[in-house]
Amino acid sequence: MSDSPKEKLSCPFEKIYPSQLEKNDLFHMKLAYNQAIDAWNHGEVPVGAVVVKDEVVIAAARNQTENASDPTAHAEIIAITQACRTIGDWRLNDARLYVTKEPCPMCAGAILSARVGFVAFGAPDPAMGGLGGAIDVNAMPKANHRAEVVSGLMEQECLALVQGFFRAARSEKNNPSTASS
Amino acid sequence: MSDSPKEKLSCPFEKIYPSQLEKNDLFHMKLAYNQAIDAWNHGEVPVGAVVVKDEVVIAAARNQTENASDPTAHAEIIAITQACRTIGDWRLNDARLYVTKEPCPMCAGAILSARVGFVAFGAPDPAMGGLGGAIDVNAMPKANHRAEVVSGLMEQECLALVQGFFRAARSEKNNPSTASS
Repeated sequence: MSDSPKEKLSCPFEKIYPSQLEKNDLFHMKLAYNQAIDAWNHGEVPVGAVVVKDEVVIAAARNQTENASDPTAHAEIIAITQACRTIGDWRLNDARLYVTKEPCPMCAGAILSARVGFVAFGAPDPAMGGLGGAIDVNAMPKANHRAEVVSGLMEQECLALVQGFFRAARSEKNNPSTASS
Repeated sequence: MSDSPKEKLSCPFEKIYPSQLEKNDLFHMKLAYNQAIDAWNHGEVPVGAVVVKDEVVIAAARNQTENASDPTAHAEIIAITQACRTIGDWRLNDARLYVTKEPCPMCAGAILSARVGFVAFGAPDPAMGGLGGAIDVNAMPKANHRAEVVSGLMEQECLALVQGFFRAARSEKNNPSTASS
């Protein structure tokens, strides 16, 4: 047992190593899920995202808001920036974004700005979801782009991750010396 | 006369140099307006933003999407990131953001994520505005923050800037050799 903050925050969920033989939606969501676990291990709300084009992962990122002291450093924003840098173009029409939680309005807006063609998310977010959960940024009638959206991919796993993180954080806050023992 | 792309794109509008004796909303919007002119002079859609806290400008940014090949590099996103870095905190409750155009949903979402207390914008955007123009990200019932919003500050000047830019860009596209002569 250790009292170091890092160990207390270590994620109890295991990463998933999908077969490289099936590069489908589930495969890519598993990669996003692993990014979310990395986020937890860095003390961040566990959300992860990957961007895929022509079956190649062109970006993979985790939420970094706390460590970067930057509220815009959500996994999706970082992944979109990365993806555009990789292909040298800010238009991601042919790309597919996988993210473990429903994007917030900021990230849903970024998806539209980048013209991302396809988005799959895991856990829905009724309080802050920007793709139908709390508001639907993808439904603006005069917008010049609309993404194809699939929800609920690995929903239970992605939700368990976020809920587990907040439970651990509360436990840690209420009982700082024994929360992880 | 020159055919260089930079000269063709140079902004015909003048910067405004407000008196330092009146650090009110109009003063700060003029600083944002000057950032928008800088954006035009770099070949970008002219949008500028500043963030102010305790009457001190803690961030000033212009739209950089084209030059950065990054659809998330809107003036507001860059300004929020800068402001958080300046004060070492991702919470901007006591800060005031001034931006020449109504924030898109991405930027409106970032304003909420950063918990920006007050926002003033210039030109409304009925097609893509995220603070009531096309959708109101600030009105999500379960959100943990709501910003105070003032619209229409220097509306005519900010609108003229954006419309002038697109007119010049169209003219340049239709008649590349003489558009700026």
